[in-house]
Amino acid sequence: MSIAPYKAAVIYKHREPMKIEMIKPPEVRGEQVFVRTAGCGLCHTDLHIWLGELQGLPEKIPAVLGHEPSGYVAAKGELVPDHIKIGMPVLVQGGYYVEEDIYTLKGVNQIARKRAQSWTGAYGLYGGCYSEYFIVPSYRYLVSAEGLEDLPAAAVLTDAGLTPYRAVKRTLNIAREYAEADDFIVVPGVGGLGSFGVQIINILAPHLNVIAVDVRDEALELANKVAKIYASINAKKENPVDTIKKIVGSKKIIAIVDFVGTEATISTYIGLLSPGGVYTVVGLGGMKGSFPIPDLVVNEITIQGSLWGSIADLRELVALAKKRMINYKDLVTRRWRLEEINEAFEFMHKNLHIGRMLITP
Amino acid sequence: MSIAPYKAAVIYKHREPMKIEMIKPPEVRGEQVFVRTAGCGLCHTDLHIWLGELQGLPEKIPAVLGHEPSGYVAAKGELVPDHIKIGMPVLVQGGYYVEEDIYTLKGVNQIARKRAQSWTGAYGLYGGCYSEYFIVPSYRYLVSAEGLEDLPAAAVLTDAGLTPYRAVKRTLNIAREYAEADDFIVVPGVGGLGSFGVQIINILAPHLNVIAVDVRDEALELANKVAKIYASINAKKENPVDTIKKIVGSKKIIAIVDFVGTEATISTYIGLLSPGGVYTVVGLGGMKGSFPIPDLVVNEITIQGSLWGSIADLRELVALAKKRMINYKDLVTRRWRLEEINEAFEFMHKNLHIGRMLITP
Amino acid sequence: MSIAPYKAAVIYKHREPMKIEMIKPPEVRGEQVFVRTAGCGLCHTDLHIWLGELQGLPEKIPAVLGHEPSGYVAAKGELVPDHIKIGMPVLVQGGYYVEEDIYTLKGVNQIARKRAQSWTGAYGLYGGCYSEYFIVPSYRYLVSAEGLEDLPAAAVLTDAGLTPYRAVKRTLNIAREYAEADDFIVVPGVGGLGSFGVQIINILAPHLNVIAVDVRDEALELANKVAKIYASINAKKENPVDTIKKIVGSKKIIAIVDFVGTEATISTYIGLLSPGGVYTVVGLGGMKGSFPIPDLVVNEITIQGSLWGSIADLRELVALAKKRMINYKDLVTRRWRLEEINEAFEFMHKNLHIGRMLITP
Amino acid sequence: MSIAPYKAAVIYKHREPMKIEMIKPPEVRGEQVFVRTAGCGLCHTDLHIWLGELQGLPEKIPAVLGHEPSGYVAAKGELVPDHIKIGMPVLVQGGYYVEEDIYTLKGVNQIARKRAQSWTGAYGLYGGCYSEYFIVPSYRYLVSAEGLEDLPAAAVLTDAGLTPYRAVKRTLNIAREYAEADDFIVVPGVGGLGSFGVQIINILAPHLNVIAVDVRDEALELANKVAKIYASINAKKENPVDTIKKIVGSKKIIAIVDFVGTEATISTYIGLLSPGGVYTVVGLGGMKGSFPIPDLVVNEITIQGSLWGSIADLRELVALAKKRMINYKDLVTRRWRLEEINEAFEFMHKNLHIGRMLITP
Repeated sequence: MSIAPYKAAVIYKHREPMKIEMIKPPEVRGEQVFVRTAGCGLCHTDLHIWLGELQGLPEKIPAVLGHEPSGYVAAKGELVPDHIKIGMPVLVQGGYYVEEDIYTLKGVNQIARKRAQSWTGAYGLYGGCYSEYFIVPSYRYLVSAEGLEDLPAAAVLTDAGLTPYRAVKRTLNIAREYAEADDFIVVPGVGGLGSFGVQIINILAPHLNVIAVDVRDEALELANKVAKIYASINAKKENPVDTIKKIVGSKKIIAIVDFVGTEATISTYIGLLSPGGVYTVVGLGGMKGSFPIPDLVVNEITIQGSLWGSIADLRELVALAKKRMINYKDLVTRRWRLEEINEAFEFMHKNLHIGRMLITP
Repeated sequence: MSIAPYKAAVIYKHREPMKIEMIKPPEVRGEQVFVRTAGCGLCHTDLHIWLGELQGLPEKIPAVLGHEPSGYVAAKGELVPDHIKIGMPVLVQGGYYVEEDIYTLKGVNQIARKRAQSWTGAYGLYGGCYSEYFIVPSYRYLVSAEGLEDLPAAAVLTDAGLTPYRAVKRTLNIAREYAEADDFIVVPGVGGLGSFGVQIINILAPHLNVIAVDVRDEALELANKVAKIYASINAKKENPVDTIKKIVGSKKIIAIVDFVGTEATISTYIGLLSPGGVYTVVGLGGMKGSFPIPDLVVNEITIQGSLWGSIADLRELVALAKKRMINYKDLVTRRWRLEEINEAFEFMHKNLHIGRMLITP
Repeated sequence: MSIAPYKAAVIYKHREPMKIEMIKPPEVRGEQVFVRTAGCGLCHTDLHIWLGELQGLPEKIPAVLGHEPSGYVAAKGELVPDHIKIGMPVLVQGGYYVEEDIYTLKGVNQIARKRAQSWTGAYGLYGGCYSEYFIVPSYRYLVSAEGLEDLPAAAVLTDAGLTPYRAVKRTLNIAREYAEADDFIVVPGVGGLGSFGVQIINILAPHLNVIAVDVRDEALELANKVAKIYASINAKKENPVDTIKKIVGSKKIIAIVDFVGTEATISTYIGLLSPGGVYTVVGLGGMKGSFPIPDLVVNEITIQGSLWGSIADLRELVALAKKRMINYKDLVTRRWRLEEINEAFEFMHKNLHIGRMLITP
Repeated sequence: MSIAPYKAAVIYKHREPMKIEMIKPPEVRGEQVFVRTAGCGLCHTDLHIWLGELQGLPEKIPAVLGHEPSGYVAAKGELVPDHIKIGMPVLVQGGYYVEEDIYTLKGVNQIARKRAQSWTGAYGLYGGCYSEYFIVPSYRYLVSAEGLEDLPAAAVLTDAGLTPYRAVKRTLNIAREYAEADDFIVVPGVGGLGSFGVQIINILAPHLNVIAVDVRDEALELANKVAKIYASINAKKENPVDTIKKIVGSKKIIAIVDFVGTEATISTYIGLLSPGGVYTVVGLGGMKGSFPIPDLVVNEITIQGSLWGSIADLRELVALAKKRMINYKDLVTRRWRLEEINEAFEFMHKNLHIGRMLITP
């Protein structure tokens, strides 16, 4: 391997601008794969880490953030099998773990008991994708991106797409039991993740109607552009509960997939569910959610959290994207160069964007 | 039919003693079945109705309460099939409904959208089992009790037994995914329902350990008498969370089946669950439950309510009882005559009993 | 009720022409509903009964055949609830049963242990829909057809549509586990039922590709008209196995839904399944199917039979049709008057038709 | 590492005695683990390989057979994590694979599309456990055996125990839907695997009754010693179908788990299943199985193959064994020294043994 020193955005201190520096490539051993970045999604989790709001993250400083990557295989360890070839386009599922347990053995590595805790930054300077290159601890986390139209944009599939994919699948696993055609699913929050979520409902349950709720007209517009939505509600302009009840009439609301995840959204919408309904919390917008115990029991409601997605989930999602059933490109609304990362973070901090933004080194 | 007038405990006003009166038998038509009471469980729901704490119940007054019955078929309508014979011992599932919908069609009549709202008392003087006889709207709600040792006591299977049966089945449906032998299920509240619950865990998941928590030593004692319990904790005498953590060590808590159902129990125990764990709320002890959103999402926790059980569930449970796998007799800790009903209600109100009490007319 | 005598096609002897006779309306009691026929599908099962090929059917003679009906409520018994109104358009699920058991309690009445054995003809002259009117034993078997465009044609939903609906749902329940987008489902036999089947795959699993196989070009054409098919194979013109393997390449075949159901189709296609794949037999074309034991075990293949559908299934399917997601109208390729029934049976016997035919009295 | 040359039973030619030779330890690299054998089960698969009846196996000769091992970690590659310690007792799941796919990602490595084809012997002289040592390609296939009483005997858990464990779990997943307490499961073939199978039914579904069928009284005796069996039938002495029908009466047979797997067993027993029943084929005793199409469809029967078990399955099973819920020791009916291997194979060939035999080097 003869990769020359490369550029990366290095964080030295919380809330201080990252520095674009030249990094010497690490040794690539065993099952490890070194990937040249095509795109790296800008995720609010990174922002919260940079702001120092997620305790203990990054684990060590200096570090390079960024955990939603696409790229090309640039180098590989001696235990990586032949079918992983240099130059191959790949997406990465970042649920790295450090010990096999019942979860990893059943393929849900992202909820393993011993996860690589500070996974973005787990490899110090080498794990994050706000960088021209980054290292992946095993080829097992890679999914082939061959056949995807827009590799840099496809980066957002690995988190903004993957998380709602799993959440919707798990929601429907429960909701299918009593769902009838023309029943409803309410989706509070149709930013990047929510817009993917509605697309996935469209694919996996086209006989169900989606009601999208947001407080931003632009978000509702973008969601309507990429997905089929029965009704869109701006919760700042009208009472969402009243409007939803009017729309639904005697039909049933059999699921709510909440991409906001605050005490307010949960307490606002959970009462709408019909018996056997399911409330899936995806967003991490608040600390504490609450529910009415009598409703939960008498209507046998389920509340479930859903975290990211597994490697198998990503593989399934990517296959949908290859089949052109997922529109990820229109959800990437802005691309920044690596050198603009601090500007991009500021922009993200001010909540000025709709959809997902990208760093393309 | 030539049934003479019979005795019933009639409620005329909330919080005033029920009167033992003679009732003229109703006409029994169509699919209806008239049952001579063998036993009728004393359930706190009746107490709350009597106290006027459940709005709108009973629907009409005067009424006869009591919804946990066993008895013998005394008369039947012209549309009741031949295999329902006069004199046949039966148990009754009381999830009466008034319109077929997707729930009734799938056999979960107890969560039907149009339930017979005030089902105990739905038939005014004729539906409740604090009475020598009562009417059942259709033979479909009957389960044969042939082969049960103690028919009066078996009455408690129809609610105190049925509710935890369904709750545990639904809990295991989820918990089985990541449960390993020697993992733990925590059961807060081992009164009548909870003690049944632990028995059912013993049957359906003998490879899992149960930790029982209660604030009454007598309840823990009774539970240990009828079920296999790994550890019993009196939450008044020691910090249950600390003790549980010590017991469990590096094993997992994969389920909590909460027969108390208050904000306190939910917030105390939910944090103990391992990834993929499930918290089933059965008890209706409080109005509002809450959970930590980050835990719910990051560990993909499920919270679900569970209501009573279906006719099919009752049939399954009764088959277990016939096979002597369920000890319901020792859970019936006191039997009252119909004439003692007001005394029994006072006793129940003062929470002086452990286990389940019975009216045997 | 004052319904005048009405016309029906009465069978007196196997293989002899049915006679169009005037029937005096029966008394309508209890939960029974009397329905004025809108359409009655011509099903091969009726043909086999008429030919005397199904032992013991019809149970009593004279009888009226026909079990795939739509119509309008004309009269009802005294126990039929208010929401079933005279004049209401309905479809009928004909899985009549005569005793509650675990199957009926769980909503799969069509596989009840004590079914109304000779259900078409169970009511002698009054149960079959090759007639201007027919009786349904309980309102519970009715599904509202309000909102369906073409009520006579919608009759075919109750069998030709319902059977593949359940079969596909049950197939996907298994196949979803390892299915990836662009994987394949093979459908041998795309006559009436098969064409519905492909439509339902399109709805419930739009990310999977269907390969349709038939020996009739016209059937393949019709199937392509109503459903989205990836590849169509005429098994008389090319070796279907070779062609399928070429099409599928390194992708997987995760399910086969066989609407032919002969020893030949099963042994031809079962070897194509990838690990975890499922072979669903719907067609009753043969007596004995066989499979290679080593393949079954080593690839953990599932073979399952699927029978008709439940009332809940019909309700779900009708909701899809109301939403215009199912094209049933184009599958009704010919309509006969009641007086032409013998001609229609002869036509059916000669296998001259493609799609489904209808009697419209 | 300083392991001295060690003894192994080497096969040079089919049907010729294996030679006990001294082998030089291989290099142990990457994720590989070198294990000192405690016990190695004698499995008929090895016999068939030795006889040359399984085409292409072993892949290369000379080879060492044996795939049901327990042992102690003796050496490990540089990528094996710390918690795998030298001296640690382990069991090995042998479903080695060579490429990640949807199956390995979902944890069912034993049905991976690209399996290590000739896995016993995949490493030539180093993979089989009829040897003092053997190599495992990754620590991921290991399950800790700490706490097991009898490590050599516990070897049989990895195949003779694991295979029925998975088969029974998958059987019950289907059978639970309509199973009622006191319903029946029929188990044809209660040798080593079948006897484990009944034990696992006892644990996971203690409310169901097992009818065991075999042609050897000794096998039935041993099965009754280690498991709870409702009725035992020697199919050579009485007509099993008649006897079963008499025993079952009006109850249901909801599952058959067939450890013989011949055309005869399948065609004999499949007709006994009640609606919704499941026939699981585990045994590989024949080439072709057959079933009546009308029964399969009309009763919605499921036939499924079940292969071995996954790493997660083994982990679950071992936890049961540690909890003393599985009796594996009494199923090990004979232990041979490595030097006696040819004698042992002859013994196995003559079908002289009941239960499972072991090589303990």
